[in-house]
Amino acid sequence: MATMLINDVEIYYELTGESGEVLTILNGIMMSSGSWTEIKKDYIKSGYRILTVDFRDQGKSGSSPVDYEIEQHAEDLKVLLDQLAIKKTHILGISYGGQVGMIFALKYKKCIGRLILANTSSRLSNFLKGIGDAWDEAAKLYDGERFFRIAMPLIYSDVFYETHYDWLKEREKSFKDVLTKNWFTRYLRLSSSHGKYNIEAEIYNIEAPTLVIGADRDIVTPYEETYKIYKKITNASFVMIPECGHASCYEKPQEFNIQVLGFLGIRRLEEEGRA
Amino acid sequence: MATMLINDVEIYYELTGESGEVLTILNGIMMSSGSWTEIKKDYIKSGYRILTVDFRDQGKSGSSPVDYEIEQHAEDLKVLLDQLAIKKTHILGISYGGQVGMIFALKYKKCIGRLILANTSSRLSNFLKGIGDAWDEAAKLYDGERFFRIAMPLIYSDVFYETHYDWLKEREKSFKDVLTKNWFTRYLRLSSSHGKYNIEAEIYNIEAPTLVIGADRDIVTPYEETYKIYKKITNASFVMIPECGHASCYEKPQEFNIQVLGFLGIRRLEEEGRA
Amino acid sequence: MATMLINDVEIYYELTGESGEVLTILNGIMMSSGSWTEIKKDYIKSGYRILTVDFRDQGKSGSSPVDYEIEQHAEDLKVLLDQLAIKKTHILGISYGGQVGMIFALKYKKCIGRLILANTSSRLSNFLKGIGDAWDEAAKLYDGERFFRIAMPLIYSDVFYETHYDWLKEREKSFKDVLTKNWFTRYLRLSSSHGKYNIEAEIYNIEAPTLVIGADRDIVTPYEETYKIYKKITNASFVMIPECGHASCYEKPQEFNIQVLGFLGIRRLEEEGRA
Amino acid sequence: MATMLINDVEIYYELTGESGEVLTILNGIMMSSGSWTEIKKDYIKSGYRILTVDFRDQGKSGSSPVDYEIEQHAEDLKVLLDQLAIKKTHILGISYGGQVGMIFALKYKKCIGRLILANTSSRLSNFLKGIGDAWDEAAKLYDGERFFRIAMPLIYSDVFYETHYDWLKEREKSFKDVLTKNWFTRYLRLSSSHGKYNIEAEIYNIEAPTLVIGADRDIVTPYEETYKIYKKITNASFVMIPECGHASCYEKPQEFNIQVLGFLGIRRLEEEGRA
Repeated sequence: MATMLINDVEIYYELTGESGEVLTILNGIMMSSGSWTEIKKDYIKSGYRILTVDFRDQGKSGSSPVDYEIEQHAEDLKVLLDQLAIKKTHILGISYGGQVGMIFALKYKKCIGRLILANTSSRLSNFLKGIGDAWDEAAKLYDGERFFRIAMPLIYSDVFYETHYDWLKEREKSFKDVLTKNWFTRYLRLSSSHGKYNIEAEIYNIEAPTLVIGADRDIVTPYEETYKIYKKITNASFVMIPECGHASCYEKPQEFNIQVLGFLGIRRLEEEGRA
Repeated sequence: MATMLINDVEIYYELTGESGEVLTILNGIMMSSGSWTEIKKDYIKSGYRILTVDFRDQGKSGSSPVDYEIEQHAEDLKVLLDQLAIKKTHILGISYGGQVGMIFALKYKKCIGRLILANTSSRLSNFLKGIGDAWDEAAKLYDGERFFRIAMPLIYSDVFYETHYDWLKEREKSFKDVLTKNWFTRYLRLSSSHGKYNIEAEIYNIEAPTLVIGADRDIVTPYEETYKIYKKITNASFVMIPECGHASCYEKPQEFNIQVLGFLGIRRLEEEGRA
Repeated sequence: MATMLINDVEIYYELTGESGEVLTILNGIMMSSGSWTEIKKDYIKSGYRILTVDFRDQGKSGSSPVDYEIEQHAEDLKVLLDQLAIKKTHILGISYGGQVGMIFALKYKKCIGRLILANTSSRLSNFLKGIGDAWDEAAKLYDGERFFRIAMPLIYSDVFYETHYDWLKEREKSFKDVLTKNWFTRYLRLSSSHGKYNIEAEIYNIEAPTLVIGADRDIVTPYEETYKIYKKITNASFVMIPECGHASCYEKPQEFNIQVLGFLGIRRLEEEGRA
Repeated sequence: MATMLINDVEIYYELTGESGEVLTILNGIMMSSGSWTEIKKDYIKSGYRILTVDFRDQGKSGSSPVDYEIEQHAEDLKVLLDQLAIKKTHILGISYGGQVGMIFALKYKKCIGRLILANTSSRLSNFLKGIGDAWDEAAKLYDGERFFRIAMPLIYSDVFYETHYDWLKEREKSFKDVLTKNWFTRYLRLSSSHGKYNIEAEIYNIEAPTLVIGADRDIVTPYEETYKIYKKITNASFVMIPECGHASCYEKPQEFNIQVLGFLGIRRLEEEGRA
């Protein structure tokens, strides 16, 4: 747990483990390093060094003094990796974090090992713009409970609601205090950073072995958007988690981790086989 | 265009045509008689008498002086039909209107001809509760533009956003003036009326020849909910409109009307064949 | 019930009704005019003149004295229509018949009204070739019962098997006598006629108002193939019949006829509205 | 590579590795130990001892001197494990092998670690009976090429046909010599062994941590059948491989192995965590 001053912003990160391949995890827009505490345990036990990082305007990182586009996070990440002397890292990015992951993979090809893209998209479709607008509107209420109440049905699947309704309502209440006015101000800046995001025409150039994870009930980044990524990236595998919404790592943590660790393992064997 | 005092509320209705089988259309929660102006033209030309009706607290009908459950609309409708001397009617209900349609079909078996249920469900699932809560939260802003911005992504499909984005943004703006404070107060009462709605265990008893219309990208009442209705009603047909969200009659008016008129026609032939 | 000598072959056809718009029905490869006896009743009652026709090498039509490509059937049909003084007809084609329908619609634009394409495809994909090879192999056994036993699981859906198993086994047995050596010889020639069929690049040019009917469990012409047709034809509607295999008109006759009569009716109203 | 006389039949098996957890692989009905040569390499490198085994009447195992039900294979396997002093094993079963795996898991609860069920079902549905009948009919031709030509479209997906057509046609040819008269006689006995198979009402009792693998284009054991298994087994995870047919381990070997190794790894961590 540490911060590093990068491009005028204190970037918060956590690096665990001393040796082994590095896996960098990139957050969804409402998440932070802390979101991965439980999930990453399996990755650590499996021998990976895990780097989680809060984007500028996110979690324990500082606020951005300037407006920026989503590409800025890839630049911030590159500096962080350089300073940590990490020459190569796998990247696992979910949603907004998957967008940053693809941008990074396109620009810093030598720094990336394998790429895992969960519940993400290669463009801000009109529909995703509409969802962004809805959430911006909700954020401007500056009230965590009301924000969550409005945003929730787009994030969690109907199946998850059926089985975890009380948990969701508890979580709704808890956000009353957790999400501060400052959290919303920063959220709105993060949200505005990908208004022009569209790398559909470029992702053909991603060379890293890639796993794309889709979910059948993901409303925010529908299955079709993840399928398109899979079709365009040359060296990609594709899997689908059934009965699962946008927050796949929360709704189906076991199935999610099967994909992450299975893919990293299989591709390592493949690379060792070629060596 | 007329109103009738029913159970202490002025109920607004439009009855077109002088002879022929009557088709009563029941609105979704945010709709009104006016929503059907274009759509019903084909039904009228096909020889049906069309009865549209605004529920209490909806459109041009009066406000309810008392709290009520969704079943109240079926009672109001029964009185209206009696007063209009309509002994038997087909019913086309969408979403909330489909719920009222099923309730009516269960209670007034002799009054119903054929039943068409579009984008509806036989219970208020946890997920539907969550959506209701989100929309209630948005309604309490008492601002049509902001309300629409928040509610829209759950109602219209990603495919429709792709092709009709400008239309949707225009509509969003137009709601600024259209949705008054009173509209929202009434909306919230309508919304609270089906909090306990669950007729899953009863719809086996619906005897009317029924058509269930599902849509592959309906988030509010997912395909699976419509499928369950189809499976439980004995004499039901089931069709699906592809690339379509919850507001199927707006997103795919042609495909929607194919189902309505095709079904009414086919079943009439069948009945005539048996006669 | 009559035959007409067309391009050196006696073509069998049935034309019912004296006035009204003509709807020509084009058979799937294993079907014949007789397959539509029950289904077409609703069309006749709805006021259409119905023309069913057996392709050369099919049903009660004569055998082709020469090898031919699938386009030949469109030519045969054109002559038949001319001789019957039918200047314009709607076409409903299923599977192989849908292929002929599209070919006709491309070549004889002035002769076609509306076009309904059920469970068909715009090309002979590798997969469809594989199925064709499997059925050719089965046909060469010259045994109706064994042929049906082999072909059946690709044609009928698992849902239909669940509910109609005895009917299917009865049908299997009945084909022992029905399918003669000559039937198989003719079937094999029909089958070989579309080995090179691929009009994917041309169907953009179909101008007729078109309805594409897909089925979720159609193995022979998967949903995706019907979707592609819908996307390419400018003036097309698209509907899907759930829990239905390739032989949609048999598995779901009611849902099938809803589409056919609903579409013809809606589009007629539309045309009258423009007139 | 060895055989062992078990219940009057020489059972062929291959056991690799000297230490580590044992993973037993159970074949689909047309497969044999040799089918896994490439696939199992990753499992071996990952530290598992791999036991492949040919069922009686399959591969290099002897022919059964008596008729038997599918349960017999579970008994044969139990003796084999006892003789090899393997007290506990994970099981990976595909299709027919998955059926045997479930039967074994129900009867020998103490001998099973984790269970992976790919492309399988808990009953012989009418549809699966129909497919079995079609393949039996094809087998009775005693001709590998013709058999494969008939069986192939049900096994491989349309997507695989699109990309691997030449490979499939090569394979078709190669079976001319590979599948002998004796192979077919034995196949027919295997096929008849699960005519009464139905353990739907029992699999609630499976206690082993289980992974169910479904495929979106699996015709033989449709997605819904795998979903039902997932829903009934208490401690089960569920994943889906997109664009994949029945032979998932051949069509999508990488995605398949991600599931197998990811699941075994995740569940081991979980067990270690509880220890």
